[in-house]
Amino acid sequence: MTEKLQELKTRVSAVTDLRMANAVLNWDQSTYMPAGGAVARGRQMATLSKLAHEQFTDDRVGELLTDLAAEQGLSAEDAVLVSVLQKDFDKALKVPASFLAEFSSHVAASYQAWTEARAANDFATMQPILEKNLDMSRQYAEYLGYDSQGHIADPLIDASDEGMTVAEVRPVFAALRKELVPLVKAVAEQEQIDDSCILKFFPHDKQLAFGSRVAKDFGYDFERGRLDLTYHPFCTTFSVNDVRITSRINDNDFGDCLFSILHETGHGMYEQGVSQSLEGTPLADGTSSGVHESQSRLWENIVGRSHGCWQHYYPILQESFPEEFGKVELDTFYKAINKVQPGLIRVDADELTYNLHVILRFELECQLLEGSLEIKDLPEVWHSRYESDLGVRAPSDVDGVLQDVHWYAGTIGGAFQGYTLGNILSAQFYDAAVAANPSIPTDITKGEFQTLHTWLKDNIYQHGRTLTASEVTKQASGQDLNIDPYMSYLRGKYGALYSL
Amino acid sequence: MTEKLQELKTRVSAVTDLRMANAVLNWDQSTYMPAGGAVARGRQMATLSKLAHEQFTDDRVGELLTDLAAEQGLSAEDAVLVSVLQKDFDKALKVPASFLAEFSSHVAASYQAWTEARAANDFATMQPILEKNLDMSRQYAEYLGYDSQGHIADPLIDASDEGMTVAEVRPVFAALRKELVPLVKAVAEQEQIDDSCILKFFPHDKQLAFGSRVAKDFGYDFERGRLDLTYHPFCTTFSVNDVRITSRINDNDFGDCLFSILHETGHGMYEQGVSQSLEGTPLADGTSSGVHESQSRLWENIVGRSHGCWQHYYPILQESFPEEFGKVELDTFYKAINKVQPGLIRVDADELTYNLHVILRFELECQLLEGSLEIKDLPEVWHSRYESDLGVRAPSDVDGVLQDVHWYAGTIGGAFQGYTLGNILSAQFYDAAVAANPSIPTDITKGEFQTLHTWLKDNIYQHGRTLTASEVTKQASGQDLNIDPYMSYLRGKYGALYSL
Repeated sequence: MTEKLQELKTRVSAVTDLRMANAVLNWDQSTYMPAGGAVARGRQMATLSKLAHEQFTDDRVGELLTDLAAEQGLSAEDAVLVSVLQKDFDKALKVPASFLAEFSSHVAASYQAWTEARAANDFATMQPILEKNLDMSRQYAEYLGYDSQGHIADPLIDASDEGMTVAEVRPVFAALRKELVPLVKAVAEQEQIDDSCILKFFPHDKQLAFGSRVAKDFGYDFERGRLDLTYHPFCTTFSVNDVRITSRINDNDFGDCLFSILHETGHGMYEQGVSQSLEGTPLADGTSSGVHESQSRLWENIVGRSHGCWQHYYPILQESFPEEFGKVELDTFYKAINKVQPGLIRVDADELTYNLHVILRFELECQLLEGSLEIKDLPEVWHSRYESDLGVRAPSDVDGVLQDVHWYAGTIGGAFQGYTLGNILSAQFYDAAVAANPSIPTDITKGEFQTLHTWLKDNIYQHGRTLTASEVTKQASGQDLNIDPYMSYLRGKYGALYSL
Repeated sequence: MTEKLQELKTRVSAVTDLRMANAVLNWDQSTYMPAGGAVARGRQMATLSKLAHEQFTDDRVGELLTDLAAEQGLSAEDAVLVSVLQKDFDKALKVPASFLAEFSSHVAASYQAWTEARAANDFATMQPILEKNLDMSRQYAEYLGYDSQGHIADPLIDASDEGMTVAEVRPVFAALRKELVPLVKAVAEQEQIDDSCILKFFPHDKQLAFGSRVAKDFGYDFERGRLDLTYHPFCTTFSVNDVRITSRINDNDFGDCLFSILHETGHGMYEQGVSQSLEGTPLADGTSSGVHESQSRLWENIVGRSHGCWQHYYPILQESFPEEFGKVELDTFYKAINKVQPGLIRVDADELTYNLHVILRFELECQLLEGSLEIKDLPEVWHSRYESDLGVRAPSDVDGVLQDVHWYAGTIGGAFQGYTLGNILSAQFYDAAVAANPSIPTDITKGEFQTLHTWLKDNIYQHGRTLTASEVTKQASGQDLNIDPYMSYLRGKYGALYSL
């Protein structure tokens, strides 16, 4: 028995090493790789992926899992490992390798075509490619399988938010949308915030230094991580003790770099906070896309854009940027970093309107997959949905259906729901932390973040994948996914900001 | 047949991808990895090494090689691939995996002990560890096997300088030493050079910028490479189109950063110059440690420390460092970067004395392996050899036998000869290039390096491992390894510098 468990752990550890090595190659590709390295790097990453897949789906792994599942004497932690691995193993075996290769080659070509089509505002060229992608996404979902009463998007959602289904997400998102659309409208009717104080030139190095300082204060451990610059900010994990984040700098928009850093800091703190006892296993990972995003948004928005946080940091910021902020009031700055402005672009959206961008994408994905919407009608449906939800209409598809890479470079389905699930959970977790430690809001005004960080570590981070998203939600917040804390947070904050 | 060749290439390409991925992990470890990442990184690298070894030594690879060796219809390039792979395959199978694991674990512990023993000037602690290493190095050599008339160091030398033997290297090194010892003595009796102009504060960024500029001018392609800072400078290859170099900066010694860069630039240009048709195969590599070092030393010393080169660069250097060099004459600078000073430390040695450091280490390795010298006598033999060859004696073992990592972290044997073989070959290749293109010395005074670079690419770099070191030496220079061009270069240069 112990021998079999050891053999399983040894095999799975090698698979994890291959995946983490691939993450290093990917990080290098995004940060420091010279242009010439691209072709060989693609080949090297494909080889590591293939090997990791082969080694993980080896018959022997299946045998060991079956044998170990029947054992009685496993420790609780080992039993969870076996059960999570069994789920991963089953999923990995469901999709034929030949289909995966074909799909991966299609999306690589599709991604390339998209970069050109977007530059040329040419949806027509993308239409047949996207139609093929939709067909293949459906096929992918069929391979993964779903409940006969379920929705074809379910297995695609499950791939990043395990256990979630359309039946569960749709009503939650509909309820949220019902609250958000009128709130956004009410805000839009108020006097608009002047955010010119953050839209001017800020020296590159000083932006980075300030952002790093806040990340460190929040609790991101630079001894077990680092911050680099990339085109798209991200967080990546090579082990519990090497979790790296990236950001970008916009010389003329102070918020871009800082809040990208704080966002990735949240992701990074989650991964750094996983229990050391899980290191080197597939359990040392965030449990779902939604829970992961709850942490990036909690630290970026609920903490990082709070008035309390800037009561502490604003004098420090003024000292670092005396020319830029010396004569700007704290409240002017606070308003500027929380300005609501319904727009066309998801990644530029403020906290209040962001979810409307996500919800409409989620809804369109579901409709495409279920066949109630055709690709050819997508651009126009996109435009009209933006008009009804956000009151804006893109002048072209570039800022419409061509804006996000997701559908062009991966499955249609499962790509977006995590963003909004994360926002909802961020408030749910924060409220639970404050209920347990009422001093947290005051601590934050003093620049003390450890009480909050420790609560999150104890209740969420350390568990890694040993608890599912719904288990960790229930256990940490005492309730299932629930939009009330989030709406109450938004109403309180933006009601005050816009005198509603 | 074509199918078998294709299968072999596919298998070997995956092995190469694993090795290159491991090189990326190693580069990251030396450049950017946070301290926390070390433990997992060690495990990840061990996993990739093990997998690469397993996949390469798979029985099927052996079958394919045997079948393909018997085929008639292979192209010349494919025939070379099969033959080089057969040699690699045979070597990889000779050493039992269990011994390799034991040896690797011993040298890891030995390396750790050495870092502490060096700090404490404690050879006594290292003696038994080094004795075990000597035993294991002998065992390793026995596994690899050697000619009954040969020397036990032969297979260890062969591992980095294929085809070379003690019988071949010893007389060459003895002849070189016989020339060098009196030459160094004669120089030491002359008036010494004042190198204070390069031993003062030089700003970090400007040193790096100047070194990068020269590297680029020489022909190192930054689109297919990059330069980072590490504790020990090195060159590493992830593909023909991603060859990276590193350097270090000493704020108070101008030569340290610049000549480290030019040294690694030579290694890098070699790897970047391998034919694209070999990319992704094990032939896309330098052919031996000696030929590799010939390129680093050619660009660092024969070009980079030449008077001609600085006729071009000195005015540019003065413009970059007006305060530091504005009032310093070209000849003063030229002398400073070529100052001869017999010392205790190999890595700090000048061009003239460097080989004496190497030759004595090579000789001691051979004596240890053959049993004519015991580890316990090593410190004293080291000191007396330094006295006789260089006229200096270390005050302790720290600057004596404890100074180099090689014997403590790898095999005793095969570690050093490449440095001096490289110096000898550097002059041999340079002379051949000039014979073919007499304009080269004049080109260099104009900052034009392309004639030389192209000749080296055509005659050495492009071949990768398709030619052995002795083949490429003979083919490029028209003769076998020969110390005359090198001695003639040294006599000419240092005779003039020291008015001999």
